Amino acid sequence: MSGIWGNKIKLSIFGESHGKAIGITIDGIEPGVLLDMEYINREMDRRATGKNELSTSRNEKDCFEILSGYYNGRTTGTPLCAVIHNSDQHSKDYEKTKNLVRPSHGDYTGYIKYNGFNDYRGGGHFSGRITAPLVFAGAICKQILESRGIIIGSHIKSIGGIEDNSFNMVSVNEEELKKLAHNNFPLLNSLVESSMKEAILKAKGEKDSLGGVVEAAVVNLPAGIGSPFFDSVESQLAHLLFSIPGVKGVEFGIGFDISKLKGSNANDEYYIDDDKIKTYSNNNGGILGGITNGMPLIFRAAVKPTASIGKIQSTVDIEKRENAKLEIIGRHDPCIVPRVLPVIEAVTAIAILDLM
Amino acid sequence: MSGIWGNKIKLSIFGESHGKAIGITIDGIEPGVLLDMEYINREMDRRATGKNELSTSRNEKDCFEILSGYYNGRTTGTPLCAVIHNSDQHSKDYEKTKNLVRPSHGDYTGYIKYNGFNDYRGGGHFSGRITAPLVFAGAICKQILESRGIIIGSHIKSIGGIEDNSFNMVSVNEEELKKLAHNNFPLLNSLVESSMKEAILKAKGEKDSLGGVVEAAVVNLPAGIGSPFFDSVESQLAHLLFSIPGVKGVEFGIGFDISKLKGSNANDEYYIDDDKIKTYSNNNGGILGGITNGMPLIFRAAVKPTASIGKIQSTVDIEKRENAKLEIIGRHDPCIVPRVLPVIEAVTAIAILDLM
Amino acid sequence: MSGIWGNKIKLSIFGESHGKAIGITIDGIEPGVLLDMEYINREMDRRATGKNELSTSRNEKDCFEILSGYYNGRTTGTPLCAVIHNSDQHSKDYEKTKNLVRPSHGDYTGYIKYNGFNDYRGGGHFSGRITAPLVFAGAICKQILESRGIIIGSHIKSIGGIEDNSFNMVSVNEEELKKLAHNNFPLLNSLVESSMKEAILKAKGEKDSLGGVVEAAVVNLPAGIGSPFFDSVESQLAHLLFSIPGVKGVEFGIGFDISKLKGSNANDEYYIDDDKIKTYSNNNGGILGGITNGMPLIFRAAVKPTASIGKIQSTVDIEKRENAKLEIIGRHDPCIVPRVLPVIEAVTAIAILDLM
Amino acid sequence: MSGIWGNKIKLSIFGESHGKAIGITIDGIEPGVLLDMEYINREMDRRATGKNELSTSRNEKDCFEILSGYYNGRTTGTPLCAVIHNSDQHSKDYEKTKNLVRPSHGDYTGYIKYNGFNDYRGGGHFSGRITAPLVFAGAICKQILESRGIIIGSHIKSIGGIEDNSFNMVSVNEEELKKLAHNNFPLLNSLVESSMKEAILKAKGEKDSLGGVVEAAVVNLPAGIGSPFFDSVESQLAHLLFSIPGVKGVEFGIGFDISKLKGSNANDEYYIDDDKIKTYSNNNGGILGGITNGMPLIFRAAVKPTASIGKIQSTVDIEKRENAKLEIIGRHDPCIVPRVLPVIEAVTAIAILDLM
Repeated sequence: MSGIWGNKIKLSIFGESHGKAIGITIDGIEPGVLLDMEYINREMDRRATGKNELSTSRNEKDCFEILSGYYNGRTTGTPLCAVIHNSDQHSKDYEKTKNLVRPSHGDYTGYIKYNGFNDYRGGGHFSGRITAPLVFAGAICKQILESRGIIIGSHIKSIGGIEDNSFNMVSVNEEELKKLAHNNFPLLNSLVESSMKEAILKAKGEKDSLGGVVEAAVVNLPAGIGSPFFDSVESQLAHLLFSIPGVKGVEFGIGFDISKLKGSNANDEYYIDDDKIKTYSNNNGGILGGITNGMPLIFRAAVKPTASIGKIQSTVDIEKRENAKLEIIGRHDPCIVPRVLPVIEAVTAIAILDLM
Repeated sequence: MSGIWGNKIKLSIFGESHGKAIGITIDGIEPGVLLDMEYINREMDRRATGKNELSTSRNEKDCFEILSGYYNGRTTGTPLCAVIHNSDQHSKDYEKTKNLVRPSHGDYTGYIKYNGFNDYRGGGHFSGRITAPLVFAGAICKQILESRGIIIGSHIKSIGGIEDNSFNMVSVNEEELKKLAHNNFPLLNSLVESSMKEAILKAKGEKDSLGGVVEAAVVNLPAGIGSPFFDSVESQLAHLLFSIPGVKGVEFGIGFDISKLKGSNANDEYYIDDDKIKTYSNNNGGILGGITNGMPLIFRAAVKPTASIGKIQSTVDIEKRENAKLEIIGRHDPCIVPRVLPVIEAVTAIAILDLM
Repeated sequence: MSGIWGNKIKLSIFGESHGKAIGITIDGIEPGVLLDMEYINREMDRRATGKNELSTSRNEKDCFEILSGYYNGRTTGTPLCAVIHNSDQHSKDYEKTKNLVRPSHGDYTGYIKYNGFNDYRGGGHFSGRITAPLVFAGAICKQILESRGIIIGSHIKSIGGIEDNSFNMVSVNEEELKKLAHNNFPLLNSLVESSMKEAILKAKGEKDSLGGVVEAAVVNLPAGIGSPFFDSVESQLAHLLFSIPGVKGVEFGIGFDISKLKGSNANDEYYIDDDKIKTYSNNNGGILGGITNGMPLIFRAAVKPTASIGKIQSTVDIEKRENAKLEIIGRHDPCIVPRVLPVIEAVTAIAILDLM
Repeated sequence: MSGIWGNKIKLSIFGESHGKAIGITIDGIEPGVLLDMEYINREMDRRATGKNELSTSRNEKDCFEILSGYYNGRTTGTPLCAVIHNSDQHSKDYEKTKNLVRPSHGDYTGYIKYNGFNDYRGGGHFSGRITAPLVFAGAICKQILESRGIIIGSHIKSIGGIEDNSFNMVSVNEEELKKLAHNNFPLLNSLVESSMKEAILKAKGEKDSLGGVVEAAVVNLPAGIGSPFFDSVESQLAHLLFSIPGVKGVEFGIGFDISKLKGSNANDEYYIDDDKIKTYSNNNGGILGGITNGMPLIFRAAVKPTASIGKIQSTVDIEKRENAKLEIIGRHDPCIVPRVLPVIEAVTAIAILDLM
């Protein structure tokens, strides 16, 4: 069951890149939530393409239409379905090379799983485009969380190995996170912006692509959310994060680096601050025993370089079963990292609301 | 719902470290599987303690008793429940310090989540001991997978920053993986063994602890297992891996490092080898679009240093809500990494069998 | 979670009677199924209104549009979403009486559950109209089952207490069931047709309504489908049948009557017939221990009289919280039983395919 | 997945009639519930056998042992597992006739489903004995519901066609329901007791058995519990009720009889009573649109006659595949209806708590 997720908030996504429409049904949203359409559109825009030379020249509008679960400006509490009609499709781009499975894409694995019956155009159901409905759902969840004071934000931690600063894991705050959301290329250290952008343009010029790392934080989360074992915050979040096409690594707190520390350095010791229980450090990223401890929730996700590159690649013809060469002609992002940020924030919002 | 997981294979775990028993019910195992008790016991032993100076001096026998779903030496197809009775408990160790929440443990978060009603002794339901039933379930799943030729193995990738070699991501094979399972301290490069062990003993001497990274591989997996989005192999595996106490990072293929590569280097190009479709490299770790591609499935999990250390730590008294100092007296592993390996292999087997 | 159901086949329904659209996403349909649109439309038509004087004069076309999971005439294996756009709505009919909760409808309970935020027009999400997507999904499942030789059929067992014959529980067969599907008012004993129809028209003339019982059968089901306890065939089927608005009773085999028999009469004794194991009687309706035994699967569902009647009724004004009188003016079926048949067959097909 | 059920409260049952133990894990019980062991034992005793001449002479003690999720007399909030060790088994009774599938039991269907690997002794996992853990879980849920004022009760509605009165569907109350629980043979009309008991003893004398109908009620349920469609109260309850071995029919309110009424008689009209919204009648049994309306929740379940009878029956030898005669020798209840009552109340409590 690939398209259904969740417990209290259930998602059901559907759609193919070049089909009639993509969409999502969200089940379990409380009734009476006044939806801020401007807010949702802003989140959708953060993910949308065609904004500048750094991204693909496709112009996907991502206009959503709410079909159900919404009445008089508010959620009704019944399943809310939204669709985004597809347009601006160059489906024929894919016809002639349809049997040449694109490296690093789901073409080959999808062909095997679906016995060749899946819609291959533009990656079909494997397309990153299917994350647009996730951003829609996430925007609603973010709104609900924000109304409770819980703020989610993220920044580009690295692109092509060029590193931004990290969040201060103890003191990252609401203002900082909100500011990041209004930036199309959000960084903590603005000095690295130009070198990152140059690297992207250089890769573009070379018909190549870059990946990167996204760092996200959630602040003002109450302690006590999550569970030991199978519904740990880490499990739930990682489950959704790894559903995002291109994510190959997820780490919480200081993540892999914690494995190099001694316990005495890794452990986050407690103290009382103004009757609140806090930790001096936050190496565990706000989660202990699978449950939030009230410190900022912090994690990082590694995003691989855009699989579609213009360079000629070796591949196979899946029907003829013979070696072949592939030159991908379509329009593609040289680096999807900036567009992945709102997706990561969206699934974070969904996972957290589901656990609350 | 913290203790239930799965689709085709459903797990239900229960138990507290110092309660009467811990256990697991496995639902969905096919009928007629001849259980190899020696095999299961060997896996349980790999996780068990008291084997040598590197681990805790507790002597947990981990003798399991199958209560149901098993008849005449074979699985019946109905729910299989196994319990491990607790013994050798020093429950009183925990009484005097029960209000001093141990840093990096689930004590504080559990207290909040369960309103102070959870069994705190030895970490209760948060204890790493609850992974023993997972190893039991995993041993059954591993057996079933092995009967289909699918082999899972793992090694210590690093401890305290000291690095072992990595698997050859393209050519790692069955023999290599099977050999690792018979080693209590499995490494690819035996030259690092003594320095790793020295580091552990040094940490032990300093009343401190070390963490590390585990690298695991699955070979002979057919292509086509998994799904795009929510049931991606990465999602399912990461979900279970992050359920293991102490795991703070998970990465597939070359993981975080892929974010530094250009697409032309990261992409795994295809070729035909003896009528089989293979990739020259395996940076994606055998998974594309959430689905296996027939190459070795490879991932890494970061394990934090043992949270229990003998050094005096700052903490708070959770009842009095005041600052306090804590000296943990009990018997604890200076490094749990070697004992985590079979747990990681177990959840891998469970996740994969569930997806097949 | 009200709108999600299933294990192997997952459904996610959405929509309100007078919203933009109603629809369903079906997850888990195998790839490569050639959809017979004529077949699906015929099933949709069986449920649709406006066919004759026995049903409402609303003219709902129920034209579905498949948005995803369908390519080149076949299912792709990815989530299949279909929507039915709403039209011919007399939404204003509901405005003036919106606070007068209609007896026997979900108006009052929906108001409480959703804090008054649900879309009340035409019953909103509680409307029988939301069963149209179920019929769509069921038509696909029926098609798949039929390709495996499994046939589902049903007839009107009673209307307003006027009784049709019952299926022969041992010998009901494929031809009989297929013939019923081509009849808008399917009966085993055609002699009762005129008295049933007269009773409906009489009720209509009196601004009243009638209920009835539907009897359904599934033949050629292999033995061994289902499970003891929570996934019993009875549990799964009853779960879906009771999801259909208006269903208040479900019984399998001879159902409530079996409670009056002695064991020696109730038990279905076995015999070998041409190397097949059969039972002489079929009082258990083809299910033992929650699992099919290869005999025809037979059940009955009781449908209450249409809740909307033209007669003046006592009710309350939900906002003013005072007693009131209500005269429902809209267009309503005097008896929905004939239109419920395809819905019952649909959920039967879904439940069975999910269990196989 | 047959042994797992639930959303907020998840159950995982296991065990075979003649295996080591049967049991249940309950996940999702709130922490801090003081368990009244006397109360739980009383419920277990209501289901247990050996009480008098009306039931089997087996003496099953049904002593449960709580293994986890329980500390210092209270629930901890973590999974609560309880086991009942099997004893007093006459396993050899089943050896000689193990290939003669008992009519009306799950022997044949289980053999097919599990390829002959299931534990056939005493019905194995299909045994009514596996309902003991359900009663245990239900007793905890009932206790929690009672602490909120919600009372569940039931009586024998009929045995062998001899009818007791029905609940007054509008005025059935707490006192009435509580009184029933203290009676081993609970009836509303005590005048039918002797004829029912005589009928049972007569059936016993004839090596035959009787079935019956159980009527249950839940009072003080708030309005607003449940959902339209798949999580309707009827769906959830029927799902669990049909999991109970022997249940072949379930109806809510006046059930099948509502199909004979006109809408004007069937509809439950509203009125204000002391600022509360009530209905004059309660033909819908307290549920509209799948959601409680605050009136008593009332339903009936049909229980088939005990499948095991002493009379010689026709059957087949499942291994030899030939016709055979079977004389069941074991000790069996001539009528299980009185013992089914606590099981029905238990699953009702579980289903309702899960929905709240």
